[in-house]
Amino acid sequence: MDFKTEFKPLTVQPQEIEGKSFEMITEELGEHPFTDEQYPVVQRVIHASADFELGRSMVFHPDAIQAGIAALRAGQTVIADVQMIQAGVSKDRIRGFGGDVHVHISDPDVMEEAKRLNTTRAIISTRKATQMYEGGIYAIGNAPTALLELIRLVKEGQAKPGLIIGMPVGFVSAAESKDELRKLDIPFITNIGRKGGSTIVVAALNAISLMAVKA
Amino acid sequence: MDFKTEFKPLTVQPQEIEGKSFEMITEELGEHPFTDEQYPVVQRVIHASADFELGRSMVFHPDAIQAGIAALRAGQTVIADVQMIQAGVSKDRIRGFGGDVHVHISDPDVMEEAKRLNTTRAIISTRKATQMYEGGIYAIGNAPTALLELIRLVKEGQAKPGLIIGMPVGFVSAAESKDELRKLDIPFITNIGRKGGSTIVVAALNAISLMAVKA
Repeated sequence: MDFKTEFKPLTVQPQEIEGKSFEMITEELGEHPFTDEQYPVVQRVIHASADFELGRSMVFHPDAIQAGIAALRAGQTVIADVQMIQAGVSKDRIRGFGGDVHVHISDPDVMEEAKRLNTTRAIISTRKATQMYEGGIYAIGNAPTALLELIRLVKEGQAKPGLIIGMPVGFVSAAESKDELRKLDIPFITNIGRKGGSTIVVAALNAISLMAVKA
Repeated sequence: MDFKTEFKPLTVQPQEIEGKSFEMITEELGEHPFTDEQYPVVQRVIHASADFELGRSMVFHPDAIQAGIAALRAGQTVIADVQMIQAGVSKDRIRGFGGDVHVHISDPDVMEEAKRLNTTRAIISTRKATQMYEGGIYAIGNAPTALLELIRLVKEGQAKPGLIIGMPVGFVSAAESKDELRKLDIPFITNIGRKGGSTIVVAALNAISLMAVKA
């Protein structure tokens, strides 16, 4: 490869782009209901979506940020509902605390069991994760069925997540699953409505892991 | 693991959820300016974002869909700007035609060269890709600098992509990079404004690969 010598340099610095973006977000958002520790999460979600409506729709359990920081620092596992989240998250910071990011939706035993029960792989992988990991940060951006199953297991005392970031996107059950999440009295980060997705959950998680490193 | 026997079955079928979502999208969207071959892409983008405004903001070069189908069927490489897109795309369909999905932003030579030139890895990885692959489908959901560099190389006759899916999200240069893309007379799929992202680009690409398989 000789791509190194054929073009003139362009001075575009990633850190400058991010810093300028964050300033624009703060300016355009104006007044907001979020605390100083919640705001970096909202800011990064808006940065990842360019969607102020989505940012404003976010809801935090009062303990969410501190619980997330504590879980990461304790080296707890992050369980993602899909591979995209695992691919997008800044894994170095999580691994620096001894944790890691896992996703079980394509495990052969999960796929087999979902087929057998005629249900979603998301449900079965959630069940599997709650039995594999003590605590854990659940990062759900896609499958409402994963979130609903996790909520059921929490209610039945079969799961005790350190933090649930539950922001599945979609038209069937997504908003409803988040309505249910907001009723729980355990640490959660979510939003109201249909919007969400992998990039949004990654943004929230990256914001928290940055706080865990800096704080 | 004994997670297989502990819970009662839930009958939640993924295909039903998707079908119902697509019906809701068509109903809520109502009248729209898209052709029959463009609409499945818009529908899947709305499905991935729950954002009708984003769906309505999409713009297609008149040859975009047919060019994308032809490129996939010819086994052309899909070049993603970030790992999340590579993780999210339905790779089986692309590989079925002999193609694959590659991302070069974390290649050691790219990282080294970006540091040396004090520029973004996205720019350098785009340069590298245009020299590695003839044609190719460029899937850019994050880095406006990648899209701007690709546009420059196209204008200079140094790149001839089969299709550009250019929907970077962000506050600095994202909307502007898409404005530039829309001026090109080569196959592109893009949108107007700041919104976009990995999940959006994945949705568009998955819609096209589905058409390539079915058509």
